[in-house]
Amino acid sequence: MNRGRLTVVGLGPGTPGWLTIEARETLARATDLVGYGPYLDLVQPVDQPRARHEFDNREEAQRARFALDLAREGRDVAVVSSGDPGVFAMATAVIEELERGDGAYDDVDVAIVPGVTAASAAAARVGAPLGHDFCCVSLSDVLKPWPVVEQRLEAVGAADFVVALYNPISRHRPWQLGRAFEILRCHRSPDVPVVFARAVTRADERVVVTTLGACDTVDADMSTVITVGSSTTRAFTDSAGRTWVYTPRRYPSAD
Amino acid sequence: MNRGRLTVVGLGPGTPGWLTIEARETLARATDLVGYGPYLDLVQPVDQPRARHEFDNREEAQRARFALDLAREGRDVAVVSSGDPGVFAMATAVIEELERGDGAYDDVDVAIVPGVTAASAAAARVGAPLGHDFCCVSLSDVLKPWPVVEQRLEAVGAADFVVALYNPISRHRPWQLGRAFEILRCHRSPDVPVVFARAVTRADERVVVTTLGACDTVDADMSTVITVGSSTTRAFTDSAGRTWVYTPRRYPSAD
Repeated sequence: MNRGRLTVVGLGPGTPGWLTIEARETLARATDLVGYGPYLDLVQPVDQPRARHEFDNREEAQRARFALDLAREGRDVAVVSSGDPGVFAMATAVIEELERGDGAYDDVDVAIVPGVTAASAAAARVGAPLGHDFCCVSLSDVLKPWPVVEQRLEAVGAADFVVALYNPISRHRPWQLGRAFEILRCHRSPDVPVVFARAVTRADERVVVTTLGACDTVDADMSTVITVGSSTTRAFTDSAGRTWVYTPRRYPSAD
Repeated sequence: MNRGRLTVVGLGPGTPGWLTIEARETLARATDLVGYGPYLDLVQPVDQPRARHEFDNREEAQRARFALDLAREGRDVAVVSSGDPGVFAMATAVIEELERGDGAYDDVDVAIVPGVTAASAAAARVGAPLGHDFCCVSLSDVLKPWPVVEQRLEAVGAADFVVALYNPISRHRPWQLGRAFEILRCHRSPDVPVVFARAVTRADERVVVTTLGACDTVDADMSTVITVGSSTTRAFTDSAGRTWVYTPRRYPSAD
């Protein structure tokens, strides 16, 4: 029997152009694709027939075990993940199940092919808001207590990090994003630039540049990453009407 | 005259396989490549002849202006940047000069092609240390005062973020990394996993998994990204002797 493979593949934000070459090759080579349906739909059709295993977005552990079990049978399995699989995505679930398997999957070649994470994709669309120290925080309190989120936002708000908010809002988590803005407003001026970037590179892409004073949670959904600038982040509009946002490399002296 | 283009292209960590498809296409199409010499060397030879403009690593503003001026003459210019150009790299310098130009470059089509940043590349090699809230901090105090760095490390240390340290050490900045470890040790247990990842995917790649208690600044150089785990980050070794590091998606309840 062949030694099985499980590769966690980052799809980037969606367009095939922002997929890495190794990701494309891995998808073309795999015998089995495992993933959330809409992400599988993003994968370009390639000429080799392969099995497609769709899972609900919230069944991450089950999906990881399924993929590992399939690989143990000698299959060449690609677990697809949007963005970078290492950032709030499938790589963690797979490595978690690998450890939980306690040797059961030691015959499987596990690899991770990184991708362009949503914050980097959003940044590329508007300039360079992540040009200086930044952090990525998931606002989902499904797997972590909300007080931990608040404490973290307080900390990075006070320490003047650029903050990229992942999983900002959903039907079941309607108020958390508004609370996050409230916390950051205690530490930053209302004119600090804020970028809402939804479905970057896809047909339904929407990128909005606003300010911390004016931003509204209605502009966000589950597919949006929101980047809140630091005290030094700047926005300007060029003569073609395009608004750019960047965080300078130079930080003003404390004195 | 053709309308000029300036595209800031992220090369990812180095291997052509971890370049995006659009990055490769942009490099193949460009009439002029602008960048730090060793990064230009990473770009695969392609069959179209093009001009190559090498700059010293520290001349970022000058390099950005040179590239914008070249594009204004109608050239198709690619500014190459390792990793993701938006993360401590060339996109900021270009947008900064674009603003400073005050309309001088409005005839240039500026675009940014994102890439896999060093922290994502490092994470992919060992599992998923960035699987939960994390931050990226540059330890360089060339453009920001060192007290700002310390204050930020204190904040994210206390708030239990995974911390990726960029630009950790150089000949002119020999002690800052040791001080950063000291600060993080005040907030974390000595057995927290730490990953030193140098030149990932290149011939001289070196990835070391250690702990916050045992880590030593001698394992780092300018090409290293260091990832310091949070209180929940785990490490385990499989029967093949490979050590995996990941940060679980679930955060323990505060009570």
